[in-house]
Order: sequence, then C-alpha cells, then structure tokens
Amino acid sequence: MDYQNFFKTALDDLRSQGNYRVFANLERHCGAFPNATARGMETADVTIWCSNDYLGMGQHPSVLAAMHEAIDRCGAGAGGTRNISGTTHDHVLLEAELADLHGKEDALLFTSGYVSNWAALGTLGSRIPDCVILSDALNHASMIEGIRHSRAERLVWKHNDLVDLEAKLAALPLERPKLIAFESVYSMDGDIAPIREICDLADKYNAMTYLDEVHAVGLYGPRGGGIAEREGLMDRITVIEGTLGKAFGVVGGYISASTELCDFVRSFASGFIFTTALPPAVAAGAAASIRHLKNSNAEREMHQAKVAEVREKLSAVGIPHADNPSHIIPVMVGDPHKCKFISDKLLEEFGIYIQPINYPTVPKGTERLRITPSPVHSANDIDRLVGALEDLWGQCQLARMPLAAQ
Amino acid sequence: MDYQNFFKTALDDLRSQGNYRVFANLERHCGAFPNATARGMETADVTIWCSNDYLGMGQHPSVLAAMHEAIDRCGAGAGGTRNISGTTHDHVLLEAELADLHGKEDALLFTSGYVSNWAALGTLGSRIPDCVILSDALNHASMIEGIRHSRAERLVWKHNDLVDLEAKLAALPLERPKLIAFESVYSMDGDIAPIREICDLADKYNAMTYLDEVHAVGLYGPRGGGIAEREGLMDRITVIEGTLGKAFGVVGGYISASTELCDFVRSFASGFIFTTALPPAVAAGAAASIRHLKNSNAEREMHQAKVAEVREKLSAVGIPHADNPSHIIPVMVGDPHKCKFISDKLLEEFGIYIQPINYPTVPKGTERLRITPSPVHSANDIDRLVGALEDLWGQCQLARMPLAAQ
Ligand SMILES: Cc1ncc(COP(=O)(O)O)c(C=O)c1O
Ligand SMILES: Cc1ncc(COP(=O)(O)O)c(C=O)c1O
Repeated sequence: MDYQNFFKTALDDLRSQGNYRVFANLERHCGAFPNATARGMETADVTIWCSNDYLGMGQHPSVLAAMHEAIDRCGAGAGGTRNISGTTHDHVLLEAELADLHGKEDALLFTSGYVSNWAALGTLGSRIPDCVILSDALNHASMIEGIRHSRAERLVWKHNDLVDLEAKLAALPLERPKLIAFESVYSMDGDIAPIREICDLADKYNAMTYLDEVHAVGLYGPRGGGIAEREGLMDRITVIEGTLGKAFGVVGGYISASTELCDFVRSFASGFIFTTALPPAVAAGAAASIRHLKNSNAEREMHQAKVAEVREKLSAVGIPHADNPSHIIPVMVGDPHKCKFISDKLLEEFGIYIQPINYPTVPKGTERLRITPSPVHSANDIDRLVGALEDLWGQCQLARMPLAAQ
Repeated sequence: MDYQNFFKTALDDLRSQGNYRVFANLERHCGAFPNATARGMETADVTIWCSNDYLGMGQHPSVLAAMHEAIDRCGAGAGGTRNISGTTHDHVLLEAELADLHGKEDALLFTSGYVSNWAALGTLGSRIPDCVILSDALNHASMIEGIRHSRAERLVWKHNDLVDLEAKLAALPLERPKLIAFESVYSMDGDIAPIREICDLADKYNAMTYLDEVHAVGLYGPRGGGIAEREGLMDRITVIEGTLGKAFGVVGGYISASTELCDFVRSFASGFIFTTALPPAVAAGAAASIRHLKNSNAEREMHQAKVAEVREKLSAVGIPHADNPSHIIPVMVGDPHKCKFISDKLLEEFGIYIQPINYPTVPKGTERLRITPSPVHSANDIDRLVGALEDLWGQCQLARMPLAAQ
C-alpha cells in the first residue's frame, strides 16, 4: 500500500465535499475579548462570535490571578500522573469545589470533558456486569466513543423522546444494570433535555443516570451548577459530568457523584490513571472561576440579556435562527460550501469570526453558523453582527424567515 | 442491581489485594523542587523521587515566564475546540517547534500524550482499510486502548523481540497495510527498543512505524528529540509521538509526521476534533521548554550524571535495581503490600516520596519502586535516599544483591 497516497486521497475527498477544515489562527487579547487578531496572509482585527468561553471567564482577573499565583507557588506542570506524584493540593481543592457545586459527595478531575465522558462511560459500561447503556441519539462524540469503548450493549433512544426511552427501558429486565446517558443543553441545537421526566423513568426502571452538563455548568442555576441545579434535580442524577474549558474559561473535565462511584472510576479508568495530571495552575484557575460564579449572578444575567438581544435583532431582520430555550443561537444554512462562504466573507469583509459548523460535528444538510453571545459583547458588536449577516443574506440570496412584526 | 453495593465490593476487593491506590497530596514549591509539602493528617516536608518532571523544567524560569506572559497577553483558556475558535497563535508556533524538533514536516497537538496515542492509533487503525497493527507486548495503556478502539487486527509481538516481530510481519501479505507500534524508552523497566532494526524490518515488509518517545523527548539526542534523534533515525520513523508533560514539564501530547498524515489525523480523529484546545499559556510554556532544551545540553548531562550516581550508590549498598540503559531506576519489590509498606515508611520516617508501582501499571508480582533522579536532586538528597532504603531493606529483611566490589 502507498500510505502517503492514501492520506492525500482521503483529504482530497474531504475538500471536494466541502468538509475540509481550516483553523482560524487567532490571537486573543486579554481584557479585550471578544476581540482578537486573526493571522493569515496578513493579520486583522476580528470579533469572535463562536467562542465557548461563554461568560468571558477566560479573562476574569481572579482566574488569571489564581493561575499566576499557582505558577509562582508550584511551577508549570504537575510532573506525574495523579497516582505518581501528580496530585497536588490544587487538584484536591478543585475536586472539593466541584463536589460542592453539584451537591455530591465527591468529584473526579480529568484532563478534559472529552476524556471524562470517554473514561467514565467506558469504565462504568465495561466494569458493571451486563450493563446496558441507553444513549440519547444526539449525544456528544465523547460519550459515543466512551460507550463504544465499553463494549456494553447500547440502546440509542430518539433524541429527547421519553416515549421511546420508556419503551426501551420497559423491554429490559428490571434487575439488569442500566445507565441512561444524556446531555442537558445540546451544544449544536441548544435544546434542553426533560431531565425530571428522565429521572422519573430511571427510578421506575432502576437505572442510573449520567448527565453531561458541559454546555450548562457555570451558566444556569443559582450557583452555576447547571440545568439540573436550576430545576432542583441534582440529587436525582447519579453522575453529573462537566467541563472546565467552556463557561469556566480554562480547561479540564470532571464527573461528580457518590464517593464510591468516583472512587470506582478513579481506580479502574485507564484514561484517568495513565496520564499526566493537569497543571496545578489550571486547577487553581478553574477553582477560582467556579468560586466566583457560585457567588455572582451578574455574568449569568448579562449573558442571558445579550442572548435575548441578539435573537431579537436577528428576528427583526428575518435571519432564520433556531428557537431554543438556551444561550446557543444556531443560524441554519444547510450547505457546507455556502456555510464556509458566509463564514469567510464575515471574516474578510466584516472582521467577524464565526466558524462554519459542518459535518461531522453536525449531520450533513444541517450546516450552520453557531452564534454564542457573551456578556462581553457590546451593543455595537451585536449591531455589526446583525448588519453583516443581513448584508450577506442579501448577497447570497438566502431564505429569510417571515418578519413577524412587520 | 444495587449499584452502590457493587462499587463498594469492587473497591474492597482492590484493598484486599493491596492494589487500592491512595494519592499523596503534594504541594510543590517552585524553585525548591524536588522538595514539596505532603498534606495528610498533618503536613510534612518531603523530597520527591518519583516525578516525571525529569529535568525540573516545570520550574525553569523561561517556562514560567512564557506562561505568565501568555496569560497576560491572551487569558486563561483557549475558549473552544481547535476548529471552533480554539486555535491560537501559540498552538501554531508550538506545532512548528515540534515538527522542527523531530525533523518532520508537521506536528499535531493533543490535550495529552494519552489522547495523542489513543486518537492517532485509533484513527490510523480504523481508517486505513484492512490495517493490521503490530504492537509490542509492553506498550503503554494509551496505545493499547487506541489500538483496541480502532478495531483493526492487532498482533502482539514479544517485547523488543525482532525475531518474533519478523515472523509476524513475514506471515502477512506484503501489500496489506501494516503499522508497527512501539516505544523507545519503556517507562516501567527503562529498557530501550532496537529502533534501527525495527525500521529495517518495516522497510522490508512495507510497514509504517509508530514510535512513542514519551519518556525520551527532551532527555536524549543533541536537541532533545529523543532516542531516535540520538541514533540518527528520526527520518525513518513514520510517526513520532511524545508528551509535553514529562521532561518538558508542562502538559499535553503530540504526534509529528508527514503533512498528509498529520492532516489526516487532524481531520478524522474524534479525540482531536471534539475537545477544547489546550490553554495558550500551556502551549507557550511547552514551546519555551522545547526551545530551551534544543539549545542546552546542561540539563541532559546533569541528569545522566545524577542517574549514574544513584545507581552506583544503590549498588554499593546492595539495593537491587534493574540494570538498563536509561534514566529510570526500578527497585524491584515483587509484592504489592510490601511495596506500599516501604513507600509509606519512606514518607513517614524519612520524608522521601516514592509512589509504589503496583498492578495495573505493572504486572502482578513485579511491584516496584520507580526512582527518577533529576538534575535538581543534590548529593545530600541522594545520600538520604540510599541511606533510607538501606535502613528499610534491613527492617523488612528484603533480599540484597551481591555486593560486587566488596
Ligand atoms: C456535550 C459535550 N460534552 C463534552 C465535550 C468535551 O468537553 P471538553 O471540551 O472539555 O473536552 C464537549 C465539547 O467539547 C461537548 O460539547
Ligand atoms: C509510554 C507512555 N506513553 C504515553 C503516556 C501518556 O502521556 P501523558 O502523560 O502526556 O498523557 C505515558 C504516561 O503517562 C507513557 O508512559
């Protein structure tokens, strides 16, 4: 086999399908986010409208101060796996902070949200004898890979569909171990799962529940515990999984659950055991971010206000955006080439950066621009965004939505 | 099923086998490494002898300065996946630094060495039609999981055994795609693979080679490119994989290879695509570390000198340690309970921290203390270590090795 030729051909295929990804090379400026410099042929000032640093915590002074302090106190890296010299006091404090955030007995830190899903679901699914995992059809890649890796039986239920979930649960023996895996806020559509009803089904059929709150932690609930906190349901979820890399603005992932469950995953998960621990400074920065958002609602309120403002202004000019109860605003395009074209034009002509979301992140035919407003976007930023989209919608002769109020 | 009870029983089993892991809770002190504070019932000063921050780069001033600078310049986290707003100029520069380190066209950054192995092997193995992976029997968990995940056919060859490898290669059709996956320095035994001979076999049988240099990068070769650099073999390896979390002192992992291979993994690897990028400050710190070690041999020379000194002094008092050509000094104990006992005593009575290495990190019956000297261990540190081990070897009536020179 000619290996190089194989790689080349596979990449050419991606290009012809419009699915080849070009990463924007950005330089964020601390204190000036969402503004950044894009580097390409030449550099240009841009406003970022697709970051998952939803609240701008990535530049919050107390987060940065905690990181600086920890670097000066104990250096750059952890120097080992969690078991072999890599557990520092900052890791222990962060896990306590996370357990408290979700009202759970314990929490376990991973190098990323991806690894936490992959390792936790992989371990639970493979180690619990005869376990069956009931997985929402739109679960994130990291959950799918974890379930696949576990080799447990997997039953995929229709997205957010309680009837289908119940049918699948009811068909299983009551005594058989079961885990229902789902998300609260689905990241690409912004819809929210019926958590309470899923917990009711879990109780009825003796299933554990595994909830990915990656796009909700920090953002919802009186202390930023996520949708389950907002709805008063945290104690009904067996495992709450989250990230430190989105609303908390740093990097890392975790699960929070009972002492025994966390200890079980800690003891058996390859992806937890055999890898260098996060730097103490990352742990310290994340802990500072969580602590801040436990005590301050200002960022969450401002965030929701900006989201409402963007939605309203998009509607006023007829730019079609999916209606959902979260902070994620998908503007549907439905074609990978057009989606990339609009994104390129936004960048080149308007200094606005919104990455096109194409396959495999979303199904083919549902290509979109995914807009994520933050408290640090100004009214002027919003007007520029909506103006630019209006302009391009005209240029590209894209469909508008009916103008409700005109 | 009673889930909590299941977890409890599994943990009790671990405890009774002596394989339950208790993490030491450490506070490293920047500028004072390998000294640290251990927190337990009370806090105590300890000297760390099991860190993988092999050269002490985790406290090197230019690494810390680069991290501080990047935090001030662009904040805490990357704010997105590499594709969706998370690629910053620091990531691009680091990838260029890594490609240059290994004399390859390109490099691709992952959140950890674990994820780089898992995602790269998983993607190559699953996407190259009919690929067979020939895996050294002692490969690291992350490689094993990646291969398993790929669902490619896997042939395990005897550790470092060229005859067995050749027999397995020869039995396969010449045209069938093949990948030989192995490590340079094996982390728990410290032995080194016959890289040149493996490359010869790869050429003869038209196989790709995948070399994990996690325990060698920064440490070997005139610019820290690893064992393959030292032996002048980098251009013969298809993929060199490494970590930024051990000798480079920070966190993260990578592969370096041809442009097309890196682009292929970048385009198809779930574990690369669907996760938040490393913080720019981590990328900047790692790049500073690599740059420093490309230009300075002092740390490598001092490291080797300290390793030789520890070996010599252990031999002088008859503490049995595995003879190998690397910097890793395994002191064999061969029983999980004894291994933990010695480790506990070292900590409590002598202020010396060496984590016991038990199953599943090493096979049952080969439990050991794994000593990793660094340039920042003083002669006094070494004498204290050897004295303490001598003392405990007496107390525990452990076998000594014949005293060669007495
Ligand atoms: C729903 C969901 N879960 C998990 C992850 C992974 O989290 P992390 O970015 O911390 O790896 C993501 C996105 O990256 C996500 O969207
Ligand atoms: C041989 C080997 N490969 C890969 C890894 C994983 O690297 P990282 O710690 O960066 O995840 C390790 C240890 O952790 C290792 O020993």
